[in-house]
Amino acid sequence: MKNFNEYFLMNETDVLDYVKEKTDLFSDDSDLESKEIGDGNLNYVFRVVDVNSDVSVIVKQAGEVTRISEDMRISIDRIRIESNILKLQGKHATGLVPKVYLYDDVMNCFLMEDLSDHEIMREGLLSYKIYPKFADHITTFMVNTLLPTTDVVMDHKEKKELLKSFINPDLCEISEELVYTEPFNDYNNRNLVFEDNKEWVEKNIYNDSELKLEVAKLKFAFMNNAQALIHGDLHTGSVFITEELTKVIDPEFAFYGPMGYDVGNVIANLIFAYMNGYVNDKKEFIEWLEKTIEEVVDKFKSKFVDYWKDNVSDIMAKEAGFMEWYLSEVLKDTAGVAGLELSRRIIGMAQVKDITSIEDTEYRLFAERVCLSLAKELIINRDKFNEGKHFTDKLKENVNKYSA
Amino acid sequence: MKNFNEYFLMNETDVLDYVKEKTDLFSDDSDLESKEIGDGNLNYVFRVVDVNSDVSVIVKQAGEVTRISEDMRISIDRIRIESNILKLQGKHATGLVPKVYLYDDVMNCFLMEDLSDHEIMREGLLSYKIYPKFADHITTFMVNTLLPTTDVVMDHKEKKELLKSFINPDLCEISEELVYTEPFNDYNNRNLVFEDNKEWVEKNIYNDSELKLEVAKLKFAFMNNAQALIHGDLHTGSVFITEELTKVIDPEFAFYGPMGYDVGNVIANLIFAYMNGYVNDKKEFIEWLEKTIEEVVDKFKSKFVDYWKDNVSDIMAKEAGFMEWYLSEVLKDTAGVAGLELSRRIIGMAQVKDITSIEDTEYRLFAERVCLSLAKELIINRDKFNEGKHFTDKLKENVNKYSA
Repeated sequence: MKNFNEYFLMNETDVLDYVKEKTDLFSDDSDLESKEIGDGNLNYVFRVVDVNSDVSVIVKQAGEVTRISEDMRISIDRIRIESNILKLQGKHATGLVPKVYLYDDVMNCFLMEDLSDHEIMREGLLSYKIYPKFADHITTFMVNTLLPTTDVVMDHKEKKELLKSFINPDLCEISEELVYTEPFNDYNNRNLVFEDNKEWVEKNIYNDSELKLEVAKLKFAFMNNAQALIHGDLHTGSVFITEELTKVIDPEFAFYGPMGYDVGNVIANLIFAYMNGYVNDKKEFIEWLEKTIEEVVDKFKSKFVDYWKDNVSDIMAKEAGFMEWYLSEVLKDTAGVAGLELSRRIIGMAQVKDITSIEDTEYRLFAERVCLSLAKELIINRDKFNEGKHFTDKLKENVNKYSA
Repeated sequence: MKNFNEYFLMNETDVLDYVKEKTDLFSDDSDLESKEIGDGNLNYVFRVVDVNSDVSVIVKQAGEVTRISEDMRISIDRIRIESNILKLQGKHATGLVPKVYLYDDVMNCFLMEDLSDHEIMREGLLSYKIYPKFADHITTFMVNTLLPTTDVVMDHKEKKELLKSFINPDLCEISEELVYTEPFNDYNNRNLVFEDNKEWVEKNIYNDSELKLEVAKLKFAFMNNAQALIHGDLHTGSVFITEELTKVIDPEFAFYGPMGYDVGNVIANLIFAYMNGYVNDKKEFIEWLEKTIEEVVDKFKSKFVDYWKDNVSDIMAKEAGFMEWYLSEVLKDTAGVAGLELSRRIIGMAQVKDITSIEDTEYRLFAERVCLSLAKELIINRDKFNEGKHFTDKLKENVNKYSA
């Protein structure tokens, strides 16, 4: 058996020994099996199950180089950030994130609840599954994890310590590049624009200086506005889901940023699913998505107001009109970020299956142009989107425009 | 001789032994004298001089409790912050801050250049002295220390490390309370309003909810906008000056905040001097101050633009119109903070001699009301002050209004 007092990258057998030595999750007569199930670019994810009892656990370990390239190094500190924020989110939004059993700062790994009975939401959406409780769950998750970490609610000195412990340079750099820069100029020459859409993107995105000026403003807000401890990567691939339960995972991008970043990402990724459903003529599915997009905005707003009223502690934040102003700023960021996510997942290097799986060229062009036109309006006119219907009306307007 | 390997609060004799042991600033035949010259609330400041050669040095040490109350504890980490930022400022704005010779993280002290041939600027202004180079020097200091630490110029990952090392909870709390909260509601019951002005302040400040809403917005920008590594306390008491030289001292409030905080503080404190000069009929002095206030704004702007053009590194920050937008935001913060400083130094617990030394009650009321009325306009209409003349015009308008 290997020594776990010094870091090394574990294989399936090492992980078996590790959970036996470090935890008492399994009984002595257990018959453990281990399998590496990670499909991301950064970490190794093992599922350990006792075939006698069906008790299981997930072990997530960071490697010192990425899985896509030996040359790409990303601080393994991300595992500390991920396990710490999962614990914090679990405290504020109980039941909406996996439980963390153990964090090991030597082996750079942590153990968490196995959610194999759930499905990755993006996969479910690609099969046009409907999740009636999603809007309710995700808005509770966002309000209950975001607002308590702001200066509105939290002691200001404790907030600064939390801010310090979640400074996340490597992961933030990825977002700064892939979300806020490359999709608008391809300056690193690694965008992945659909061949038939290249000319359109060149003309309507790369050459739109009004758009790019607004993106620059949003980029500096992302880098400078230490508003709340955000998830930082809240797309439908970061959600494990069933009809009844929702669990948000993979918060390794967490840092103190604008809370609209999380809300905007959720909305944009629902729009991708909507466009896939639309071109595949899934009427009931897109009706549910339309309602869900509206509810994500409107339930976020109403839960935000309730949470604020119950928990506001800063005396100046109690001034008449301040909450309304603050929420309007969050919604402005939400619209802007929804536009950024819509753009970068179509133009940039990290794409989404909802769009890339559309095989018919004409349908794909249609879906992409609806998303990108909507994106531009969301970014440029971001102060005009302050209720759910504003988002879906503008979505349907663009669908009609491009299907005409 | 005492042991300097364990922290204790030094007296004048200890300091002599300390500089002999720790430095080679003085020759063997030197005849050293030491004197405690600190008059602040937080730190102990010793001047050590060799009476044979006139070579001298300043030793600044932090105590674990404040000098005003044994019950008030402020992290001695402030000494690390102060000596580190002095070194950084010295690199970017050579000659405009005292040189640092040594920082000692055990004794929580540092050694720096002795500036006893300079005068504290507020004292000089109280004698109506004119400093013809001040506007030029202070704008160079601000542009050259602020812009290089932003995401516009600095590598974003290095900036995040710098942000982390200058998180400053104790000192920020003081500003959050004394600048952004108490002057507008006296909720800690420690404001020091001039007796004859109490009713006026009650009516025009404590009861102005439009004003207080804008202050709340500015407070959250102060806490959340990690724009630049600011000095954080840049009033005329933090400037050592001669006719030829300007040295900015006491940066223990430094942290990543909005750069308008520094510019606004300079302007407000020049306005206090102006009001003192005005009621004492010092014509030449107030003409110089009027010109200086305008130059602080206008030279800041032009040096800002030059520095930006030569040093901008973020690719999105190079978008057409972004620099103009960014600068307009800085000027908006500048006006807002000038208004806050004008308010808090008259209403709050930390007052300024420029105003409190006005003995005639009517003149004092006049000076206070001009400052507070101007302050309200600066805070509420902060987007309307984007060149030097806008500040001085509004100052003179209020002078005329209240002297009528």
